[in-house]
Amino acid sequence: MQLHSAPYVSQPKSRNLLLRLSYDGTAYHGWQVQNNAVTVQSVLQDALFPILGGVHELKGCSRTDAGVHAEEYFVSVQTDARIPCDRLVPALNAVLPRDIAVHHCREVPPDFHARYSCTGKEYVYRIWNSPVRDPFRDRYLLQYPRPLDAALLHDCAQAYVGTHDFIGFCSAGGKKDDTVRTVSHFSVIREGDLVSMYVAADGFLYNMVRIMTGTLLSIAQGRIAPDALPDILAARTRTRAGITAPAQGLTLHRVFYDSLPPL
Amino acid sequence: MQLHSAPYVSQPKSRNLLLRLSYDGTAYHGWQVQNNAVTVQSVLQDALFPILGGVHELKGCSRTDAGVHAEEYFVSVQTDARIPCDRLVPALNAVLPRDIAVHHCREVPPDFHARYSCTGKEYVYRIWNSPVRDPFRDRYLLQYPRPLDAALLHDCAQAYVGTHDFIGFCSAGGKKDDTVRTVSHFSVIREGDLVSMYVAADGFLYNMVRIMTGTLLSIAQGRIAPDALPDILAARTRTRAGITAPAQGLTLHRVFYDSLPPL
Repeated sequence: MQLHSAPYVSQPKSRNLLLRLSYDGTAYHGWQVQNNAVTVQSVLQDALFPILGGVHELKGCSRTDAGVHAEEYFVSVQTDARIPCDRLVPALNAVLPRDIAVHHCREVPPDFHARYSCTGKEYVYRIWNSPVRDPFRDRYLLQYPRPLDAALLHDCAQAYVGTHDFIGFCSAGGKKDDTVRTVSHFSVIREGDLVSMYVAADGFLYNMVRIMTGTLLSIAQGRIAPDALPDILAARTRTRAGITAPAQGLTLHRVFYDSLPPL
Repeated sequence: MQLHSAPYVSQPKSRNLLLRLSYDGTAYHGWQVQNNAVTVQSVLQDALFPILGGVHELKGCSRTDAGVHAEEYFVSVQTDARIPCDRLVPALNAVLPRDIAVHHCREVPPDFHARYSCTGKEYVYRIWNSPVRDPFRDRYLLQYPRPLDAALLHDCAQAYVGTHDFIGFCSAGGKKDDTVRTVSHFSVIREGDLVSMYVAADGFLYNMVRIMTGTLLSIAQGRIAPDALPDILAARTRTRAGITAPAQGLTLHRVFYDSLPPL
């Protein structure tokens, strides 16, 4: 009796679909499928099962951490299913929970891969700089009650820009074989009580954005000197950088693909 | 044995406090205390118990429905507790759930009453006019996928402005003895996919805003003629108006008191 008769060597599929999603990550243990934890990937896989017919391997653009949000997230999936893209989007939104939305679907070349074809990403870390929380956006913000000098933090953060070995900004558990990344910009912007930190790079190490923003918060707290970032980068050890800022303030904001026109 | 030795005739208290709150109403069965249901009033009363010492009668500015939100909400409470206002706010925020925030506390004259002293309120009903939901704001919006002509609805809604008997815009269960209200403005504004309906009046009947906005949605659906609103108002019967729009799109936006300077 052969219950598992499918060949382990996967056959080439006839179509490669690219989905653009957004999600509120509060309820999820990140993107990637895990045992005994609800993840965005597992929920999307279940929702796609009846639409595409069977289990499909989903390639996500990034492994976001538990509790991290995405305003833009791309998933590629190879399939033989024939459902047109403009019917797949409403069918999927009808079965997905309301904290995940699918905005767009398109066919892409067979060798396109949501993660490996990605040429850069931009994250935003949002801080609610007030002694009183905002009940409507609390789950997307880190509340920080003490004064924050956004202009000072912006100036400090320019030390991150450029090509550096960010091994000192990587949590234990991250791969450590290639830890050089190029940060193309880091902006700290205040709008009223909201302080937003935007950072774009060709790639990010495990927890890298949260350690970069946490280190800026350590500067704001006076625990790290404002001019210390170049030395901390050069030290190449996790113990010199600041705290790992909480996940809920972090949102994947934009994902870049050189090989595709804008969606 | 006298377990209940407190006099039923309440003594005058030494202070009258006015609190300004905001809350995400998703998890609550409205403001007012009910049996077997969690309400904003019951949660606030429990949070105030150890801070003010004992159960206090809270006067809310409005009975908001289950699932309705408030960006501005006022509560007055008479107390003999001596805690200064600037210590009460952080003490209360520390124990309240994160979907309720207290922004301000002040002492007001003894005869001030959050509800009876209120001279007007402004609600906003927010519609997400897109086939795809916004996972980050979904709980505060009604998703409406078909096209909406915001300019047309704005023009229609001007029939609401002025002093009218709104008995036809009141759900069963509301008091029907005085149903004349004065609407000072009704604005329908589009910003991208977001259509916001702002309505201010000296007071609102039970479900009145939800029936006013629902009637505009019935016009958008072609179920009610765009020029029918004056006749529907004059008919003075609930059966002529449109649907009662869902609670989650409704937010109490501003509360007006003539007798107090702005908080």
